[in-house]
Amino acid sequence: MSVLCFGEIMLRLSPPDGLRFTQAHHFEAVYGGSEANVAVSLAQLGLKTVFVSRVPDNDLGRAALGAVAFFGVDTRHCVTGGERLGIYFLEAGAGRRSSKVLYDRHNSGMATLQPKQINWSTTLEQVQWLHWSGITPALSADAAAATLEALQMARERGITVSCDLNYREKLWQYSSPADIMPQLIELTDVVLGDATVFHRYFAIEAATRQQLLQLVAERFPRLQYIAMTSREGISASHNTYCGILYDRTNTYTSRTYELPDMLDRIGGGDAFMAGLIFGLQTMSAQPQEVVEFAVAAAALKHYVRGDFNLCSESEVRALMAGHSGGRVNR
Amino acid sequence: MSVLCFGEIMLRLSPPDGLRFTQAHHFEAVYGGSEANVAVSLAQLGLKTVFVSRVPDNDLGRAALGAVAFFGVDTRHCVTGGERLGIYFLEAGAGRRSSKVLYDRHNSGMATLQPKQINWSTTLEQVQWLHWSGITPALSADAAAATLEALQMARERGITVSCDLNYREKLWQYSSPADIMPQLIELTDVVLGDATVFHRYFAIEAATRQQLLQLVAERFPRLQYIAMTSREGISASHNTYCGILYDRTNTYTSRTYELPDMLDRIGGGDAFMAGLIFGLQTMSAQPQEVVEFAVAAAALKHYVRGDFNLCSESEVRALMAGHSGGRVNR
Amino acid sequence: MSVLCFGEIMLRLSPPDGLRFTQAHHFEAVYGGSEANVAVSLAQLGLKTVFVSRVPDNDLGRAALGAVAFFGVDTRHCVTGGERLGIYFLEAGAGRRSSKVLYDRHNSGMATLQPKQINWSTTLEQVQWLHWSGITPALSADAAAATLEALQMARERGITVSCDLNYREKLWQYSSPADIMPQLIELTDVVLGDATVFHRYFAIEAATRQQLLQLVAERFPRLQYIAMTSREGISASHNTYCGILYDRTNTYTSRTYELPDMLDRIGGGDAFMAGLIFGLQTMSAQPQEVVEFAVAAAALKHYVRGDFNLCSESEVRALMAGHSGGRVNR
Amino acid sequence: MSVLCFGEIMLRLSPPDGLRFTQAHHFEAVYGGSEANVAVSLAQLGLKTVFVSRVPDNDLGRAALGAVAFFGVDTRHCVTGGERLGIYFLEAGAGRRSSKVLYDRHNSGMATLQPKQINWSTTLEQVQWLHWSGITPALSADAAAATLEALQMARERGITVSCDLNYREKLWQYSSPADIMPQLIELTDVVLGDATVFHRYFAIEAATRQQLLQLVAERFPRLQYIAMTSREGISASHNTYCGILYDRTNTYTSRTYELPDMLDRIGGGDAFMAGLIFGLQTMSAQPQEVVEFAVAAAALKHYVRGDFNLCSESEVRALMAGHSGGRVNR
Amino acid sequence: MSVLCFGEIMLRLSPPDGLRFTQAHHFEAVYGGSEANVAVSLAQLGLKTVFVSRVPDNDLGRAALGAVAFFGVDTRHCVTGGERLGIYFLEAGAGRRSSKVLYDRHNSGMATLQPKQINWSTTLEQVQWLHWSGITPALSADAAAATLEALQMARERGITVSCDLNYREKLWQYSSPADIMPQLIELTDVVLGDATVFHRYFAIEAATRQQLLQLVAERFPRLQYIAMTSREGISASHNTYCGILYDRTNTYTSRTYELPDMLDRIGGGDAFMAGLIFGLQTMSAQPQEVVEFAVAAAALKHYVRGDFNLCSESEVRALMAGHSGGRVNR
Amino acid sequence: MSVLCFGEIMLRLSPPDGLRFTQAHHFEAVYGGSEANVAVSLAQLGLKTVFVSRVPDNDLGRAALGAVAFFGVDTRHCVTGGERLGIYFLEAGAGRRSSKVLYDRHNSGMATLQPKQINWSTTLEQVQWLHWSGITPALSADAAAATLEALQMARERGITVSCDLNYREKLWQYSSPADIMPQLIELTDVVLGDATVFHRYFAIEAATRQQLLQLVAERFPRLQYIAMTSREGISASHNTYCGILYDRTNTYTSRTYELPDMLDRIGGGDAFMAGLIFGLQTMSAQPQEVVEFAVAAAALKHYVRGDFNLCSESEVRALMAGHSGGRVNR
Repeated sequence: MSVLCFGEIMLRLSPPDGLRFTQAHHFEAVYGGSEANVAVSLAQLGLKTVFVSRVPDNDLGRAALGAVAFFGVDTRHCVTGGERLGIYFLEAGAGRRSSKVLYDRHNSGMATLQPKQINWSTTLEQVQWLHWSGITPALSADAAAATLEALQMARERGITVSCDLNYREKLWQYSSPADIMPQLIELTDVVLGDATVFHRYFAIEAATRQQLLQLVAERFPRLQYIAMTSREGISASHNTYCGILYDRTNTYTSRTYELPDMLDRIGGGDAFMAGLIFGLQTMSAQPQEVVEFAVAAAALKHYVRGDFNLCSESEVRALMAGHSGGRVNR
Repeated sequence: MSVLCFGEIMLRLSPPDGLRFTQAHHFEAVYGGSEANVAVSLAQLGLKTVFVSRVPDNDLGRAALGAVAFFGVDTRHCVTGGERLGIYFLEAGAGRRSSKVLYDRHNSGMATLQPKQINWSTTLEQVQWLHWSGITPALSADAAAATLEALQMARERGITVSCDLNYREKLWQYSSPADIMPQLIELTDVVLGDATVFHRYFAIEAATRQQLLQLVAERFPRLQYIAMTSREGISASHNTYCGILYDRTNTYTSRTYELPDMLDRIGGGDAFMAGLIFGLQTMSAQPQEVVEFAVAAAALKHYVRGDFNLCSESEVRALMAGHSGGRVNR
Repeated sequence: MSVLCFGEIMLRLSPPDGLRFTQAHHFEAVYGGSEANVAVSLAQLGLKTVFVSRVPDNDLGRAALGAVAFFGVDTRHCVTGGERLGIYFLEAGAGRRSSKVLYDRHNSGMATLQPKQINWSTTLEQVQWLHWSGITPALSADAAAATLEALQMARERGITVSCDLNYREKLWQYSSPADIMPQLIELTDVVLGDATVFHRYFAIEAATRQQLLQLVAERFPRLQYIAMTSREGISASHNTYCGILYDRTNTYTSRTYELPDMLDRIGGGDAFMAGLIFGLQTMSAQPQEVVEFAVAAAALKHYVRGDFNLCSESEVRALMAGHSGGRVNR
Repeated sequence: MSVLCFGEIMLRLSPPDGLRFTQAHHFEAVYGGSEANVAVSLAQLGLKTVFVSRVPDNDLGRAALGAVAFFGVDTRHCVTGGERLGIYFLEAGAGRRSSKVLYDRHNSGMATLQPKQINWSTTLEQVQWLHWSGITPALSADAAAATLEALQMARERGITVSCDLNYREKLWQYSSPADIMPQLIELTDVVLGDATVFHRYFAIEAATRQQLLQLVAERFPRLQYIAMTSREGISASHNTYCGILYDRTNTYTSRTYELPDMLDRIGGGDAFMAGLIFGLQTMSAQPQEVVEFAVAAAALKHYVRGDFNLCSESEVRALMAGHSGGRVNR
Repeated sequence: MSVLCFGEIMLRLSPPDGLRFTQAHHFEAVYGGSEANVAVSLAQLGLKTVFVSRVPDNDLGRAALGAVAFFGVDTRHCVTGGERLGIYFLEAGAGRRSSKVLYDRHNSGMATLQPKQINWSTTLEQVQWLHWSGITPALSADAAAATLEALQMARERGITVSCDLNYREKLWQYSSPADIMPQLIELTDVVLGDATVFHRYFAIEAATRQQLLQLVAERFPRLQYIAMTSREGISASHNTYCGILYDRTNTYTSRTYELPDMLDRIGGGDAFMAGLIFGLQTMSAQPQEVVEFAVAAAALKHYVRGDFNLCSESEVRALMAGHSGGRVNR
Repeated sequence: MSVLCFGEIMLRLSPPDGLRFTQAHHFEAVYGGSEANVAVSLAQLGLKTVFVSRVPDNDLGRAALGAVAFFGVDTRHCVTGGERLGIYFLEAGAGRRSSKVLYDRHNSGMATLQPKQINWSTTLEQVQWLHWSGITPALSADAAAATLEALQMARERGITVSCDLNYREKLWQYSSPADIMPQLIELTDVVLGDATVFHRYFAIEAATRQQLLQLVAERFPRLQYIAMTSREGISASHNTYCGILYDRTNTYTSRTYELPDMLDRIGGGDAFMAGLIFGLQTMSAQPQEVVEFAVAAAALKHYVRGDFNLCSESEVRALMAGHSGGRVNR
């Protein structure tokens, strides 16, 4: 039985060595996207994973799927089509200079995905968990419809559904998320979000985090777990990070990690999400352990280049056990 | 007095070292486009040149213009706007494996250029030659209208106009070139083309090259010069190249160059075009010398990486004088 | 139904840019091995393929399998074990300077493979063709026994078996190939070899190629096809290449390709082998077409970096159809 | 109206990735020099800028000017001549290991500049501010005379003049700065300096900074502003930085920035100088805002590779407004 | 008179730019090993040094010795032989992610060294100090015997002997170190160790460090100096470091260095050892200065890439004198 | 007994990948110079060699000597001094585009060498052959005097002296070579030259090569051997090469090599010179074999990057024996 992640994968292009965009004479190329990142993370943690997406029938589309397959994820249920692979340009910041992202993702294969293009019946065989994110329905009305189709099929089969709400303001052009997201969350069991996204998607606001969690839980009775993360940006190279997990009864807060000398912060939230899914599948009776695991996984991601968190369960557990990173593993 | 080149500039991304697209972990980034290439070439040959385009108001747009300004071209009349900079991916071939180009240029700043966005009155001050190509009107109806606007303004000011017909089949989506190009060529003095493009744009066919040139000349009485180039592809790394110039009276054919061990063939035709403009401006009474100069310039381009032909007049003349490249210039 | 390739995969380390070993400050790293190369080639041609090997349980072993999975090959039946991943250092030649290979492959996971470590019953489900090479039995007596086990299991299931005889003189240390190889070839349907290897493995010599093929065919009555290739080394950068296919009745000889400006000749024979398997599976009634396809595939390999031949069927067919490589595919 | 910066530009060669000089197998090449750095900075902040220098008539000279033109600076008034382009080798430090600079700039085009080589009449048209530094008169008696010529021409035209005193002990070989600099500062309106340079150039010493500023102001009555910066070097990768501005009445001190994880500290002072000129031109009635802007610009420079500070006004203002760098700008 | 260092040198392969092993498309290649590192360090400090080892007769062996000779060490007494050069793969950590070392050194030239292969009579001419480490006897019984031979020859000639005890648990396969090391230490004058190694090699344990040093001194009456170092790993990029020197009478403790933003921690102990040897040879009457020098040298090593500490005596003394690294040396 | 080579070593900086100077964002750095190249070549061929030069006392000077020591040459007799290391910039050509060299070598340590700075008495111990070139006396009157000193000392000791006449027109600024070179050649036993250099140095011209050789031999009766090479430049990437050796009796002409796909032609003549010295020392009774060896060594150099010819005697002999480079040495 495997975890299926459904979403867009893009080409990420970054100037090397901390150069600014205008200084770049080459761009480092990796592939990533929120849901693909979760899939790769889960595969490194040891779960069987499947990634489902739509990519153009060209070499960039093939390379994107190859990059995911390299790390042990099953990509055979992906479909091809559309004009282009979405691109995002990342200028990594340093110290007092912020990181900068330039999206160039309109009209991609995934943005023009339509319902019925993926054969969910065969794709969902052997699947026990489906993960999606708020990015896909933001891409287009068709993509939102395709997401709804997937969630309904999953529900019919009793598959657990998780969602990283992932609000991307610039993407929501065809509609407001408030008109689209609620019906999708009603088919979802586990969400990762924050105060902003709860407000934009569900118009929920609250004075305290505790109250906020309760309001979201009330609004979506099917939800079993609501998770949040909290990041403080001391500089572009130094953040702190912690996580929270609410199981409709209690709220579990992780320790806070100092993250000095970060290599790559993109995908930190996806690493948390993967840690959460892994934890809920393998240690769900211990919410505190789950959230500690998820946040330790996310912490390690900041020291792995690219979108993917290439860390094993034993590496995550070593950090949870207090290893600082200061030892050489021979 | 300067030469103005008007057209799109794109980000070109290529895998390094002869790698295929699916093997690339970084892409080499240069900027180029047919008309920008002509402008840079002319600046290296010593002419005052101006490049006019529309690029998005972001770092990639700025870098594209900077790359042209680096080589001495005046870019101050460019305008900003549009959602994105066009991209083309180039996989350089070798030996028996062909080069491959993947265009990702829809919806660029230049494709969404509209008439009146460029202030041609001030832009055309001090200009004595305007160069455009068949790519711009292919981008969109608006871009074609903007091209027409430019040509009319040029005509009013007695500016000589040249055009590289440059047929890109995949671009002509909103219309057929046969409905658009003729009226633009009627405003043009010098064209570079080939049998295919004369057929597609003007429905002109002929049994011999001589007859073809005469038919085109008859169809467009304003044309003073019609040039053609001929390339033979022995392999992806070895071509031959020659050029022809017709002045409504005689046809002048250049020597044919062997081009072994080519480094980068993109922009060879643009280097020829620049050599032609340079020749017609500085040695127009000698058509044979003009076409020899243009084809020698094009030959050298195959040994310069990137879109731009970074060769000086003395380098072109040394090749014309019979230098094989086998000597070290100390 | 898929093609299974069984053999060792190694880390290949090469100085960049034509540097010699003593000049290298970094080594380019790819993964490859004769049978893995065949598997990847076949996947690019569109066949379902499986690669079976034994790699150490460390990051280098995982990366080796990932590199194969990237290109669409199923690696789930590989097993882990052994102390190290074999390495080979490649110094690419140029012009008058020959290429140089330094093997460092003793004691690898595959060299210490033992019978029963691979579960052939499940691995051979859905398999209709098994490919192996003369390298595996050369590694150790255990590896030879494991090969025998695989071939016997394949025979029981009616699976077609092919072998690239691939003589590596330095590897045969525990025994002479003449004591090991014949019994393995008796279980094989298709072989690729040359005069040297027929002599070393089977003590067969002949005055003419025709006679040689007949003697091998007589010695191994099960063999349906015997293939040979012929390479002439004009320089380290320029070879010629052709192939021969014998079907026990007729001998089919391909056209001879000029291969100037080669990028990477390693894996040329594996590309031929893959072309052969592909041809025999999809066009077996036309031996002439099969051998032309195989040799065109091999020709293209010389223009792809790394061990793998990353060319599609349509690219191979374009070369067969006479395309020289001199055209840009836009 | 534009700001003109006058001075030397050099080729800067640095080992990559923190390597020491003796470990370098390639050197990263950028171009820079104190006054060119100010020009590029100002162009990024949105001012029209002109750079005037003398470079050799070779490809390195051309590339140096191209690098400045890339970022929007007008280089058309530069002249060519002299034997070579000055070079400086930079070994970037890290942590406890200091950065190291090796100058190789003798006999450069700028060091052999003579009066009358630059046509100041046409060059100073449309100029309202001229910036120079103490490096130019240190190069040679001729270069000092050429500087004097420029300042006199500027004074005649009522152009504001600024100077970064920039003491380079090893350069002053033909004379003592005390014999050269005072007469040049008498033609200057704004200076940037420090206690050491005031002592070496003007023999001014004082017990307190306040007293020092007053003594300099008394000695040079034309000076409208005297600026100083203060840097503390916690390690090669971590400094603090603040600035001071004195307007003959009050002293304005900026906040002090922590600069952890610095990428490139060269050009920090030039970025401050550019911020100062920008501030005095656009917000001169608010000296506190001016010095805050200048020091924030300098702070950002430590996170931009190369000599140039490639930051926009809005980036500087975001840092002034308290953004730590810890946010991703999407 | 020179210092001779005797031990293995390996090829070290590391992914660039903080990539993990599975992400590497090239490996940076340097050569190093504990004793070679000491030799190179000493040569930078100004001592005459000799390195003695056994490497295979191939290009990798030659490059390893060349890398040592580059830095002024005499390698003419090395011998060739054996099948391969040992390799170690290093994945540099960052922040919370630990560094990782994968050894692939079995069966190397040095591991198969036998007594009598090195001509110690001529090799030890002009030698006054011999340095070895606990790694060599761990490689094989033969290597241990060859070490014993060297030490006996040194003793006969009155040569001072030092040893870095350097415990590598995974190497000790043919025997326990407790059966091998004591007799070698009995021929040694100076050792560098720690509590773990004293326990494993000599079964010595103690409640306090002072007591531990006394017990070791008692057990080995020939020992003149026992040194220890202490490292705290705050993160993979930030450590602290100090050293201790015991002269059978007093214990001298160095200041503790903060080591933020480390570039490469491999070879830190070897840099300490070299500082110790240098100090004992040139300032032996001042044990406090010796240990301060050794630990400052080690501190600087963390900011030099590769195994070798490429720092001069003046750089070490500048750090001892309190320079933080925050100044640019022009 | 060893061969001593005396001359300048420089830093060579080249744009990578066939880029032109104005396109370079980094320069590849190697060290070389005619005489150092001969020394390294001879060391690879197995001779004991010594390199004597003067380099500045800085890291670039140290790296230059380290680069030579890496390849087994003894550099202990070099001296330090002078302001800078000479630099030359090399833009490698390709096909029809010629290579280009920009010298920046004035005022180097070697150009300011004075007599008595090298202790020739100790340096010439154990030396049986001294090699110099026409570059050193061209640098300055002092360098010419220092060369004379070296040759006189060599003559006193009966050391054989060879000279590569190496005419560099731009270097001869303080004097004409005709006033300097003859007296130096009178102390020389073996020269390598060509028609141009015989004319410029000795005012010797002749109608035929045979006559030319005789005239030179008559003019310099001490000369035992006069060698010449002949290169034809088909393109920047394809030359032919042959050599001639005259022993005052007969003229021996080598076979002519085709050199397609050249990697680096710099140092071809130095490789020939080294082959000549090696041949004359080890096979001097066979002039035909000597010249064949020298020209085969030179041929191989065109396939080794950098100035140095890193080829072994067996590689040279394989080429002489007819190996085309087309075989992989496993």
